[in-house]
Amino acid sequence: MQTSVQDLYPDSFSHCYGCGRLNEHGLQIKSYLDGDEFICALVPQPYHLAVPGFVYGGLIASVIDCHSIGTAAASEMLENGGLAQGNVAPRYVTKSLHIDYRKPTPIEGTMEVRARVVKKGKKHRIVKALLFSDGDLRATGEVVAVPIPEPMLPAN
Amino acid sequence: MQTSVQDLYPDSFSHCYGCGRLNEHGLQIKSYLDGDEFICALVPQPYHLAVPGFVYGGLIASVIDCHSIGTAAASEMLENGGLAQGNVAPRYVTKSLHIDYRKPTPIEGTMEVRARVVKKGKKHRIVKALLFSDGDLRATGEVVAVPIPEPMLPAN
Repeated sequence: MQTSVQDLYPDSFSHCYGCGRLNEHGLQIKSYLDGDEFICALVPQPYHLAVPGFVYGGLIASVIDCHSIGTAAASEMLENGGLAQGNVAPRYVTKSLHIDYRKPTPIEGTMEVRARVVKKGKKHRIVKALLFSDGDLRATGEVVAVPIPEPMLPAN
Repeated sequence: MQTSVQDLYPDSFSHCYGCGRLNEHGLQIKSYLDGDEFICALVPQPYHLAVPGFVYGGLIASVIDCHSIGTAAASEMLENGGLAQGNVAPRYVTKSLHIDYRKPTPIEGTMEVRARVVKKGKKHRIVKALLFSDGDLRATGEVVAVPIPEPMLPAN
């Protein structure tokens, strides 16, 4: 079983509502390496609605956001020793998020997001993500990820 | 007490996780007219974290998204009889969403979003939104809102 990048964050960075393994109320998404990109999957809850039958856009934005941040971190890890257990994932945060909603996403079934780093700056990484459900592309996203800034670091 | 635009959606459009008054699991945000813009307020739950002390970006995206869609609907109502109880709000959905995260948002306190329509096309409305917390601008958003498409309408 492959390790997800979220399982390689230190505890202090594992409380995220979207992807923190220590947030019992959260979505707990997991991002895995798959070929030359990263994938994650999420089954929406029946109440994650926009209108009956279709997924809430805020959930789509949330999943693309967290998975893209995980992809930025994981891509840096691949350059520095890989995703092996025991290695520590760096923590990125979102500078900007852009989502294009291309087709309504059915509430039934699994949403799958595929993402990759498309540009690497001195500090930032730009990640593009595609969200599929029931075989169709439903939304695309672009996230500008930056290393977590000083004011957001743990106080200790 | 002013009526929120979300209270003027018909029941079939009131199940949204972000703003539906009939979604008991959801955020139930409410958008009100305030001068020449629309405002909404939300107190994050303690578990809506990015990292300890700061709000999850997906929640910020969700609130800006729903409030901007409400603003698009409400702005159309103002052109057609106003926001009086008994009038029915039109349902817009999100074509695209862009968020710039400018400053970390503290988990304590109330997030307030102010939004207005900045461009009105033949079918779409572009809404700009500013999110404040603890007196500072924390995030800005731009939403392209379009009338709900046929496939998302109730089946009956």
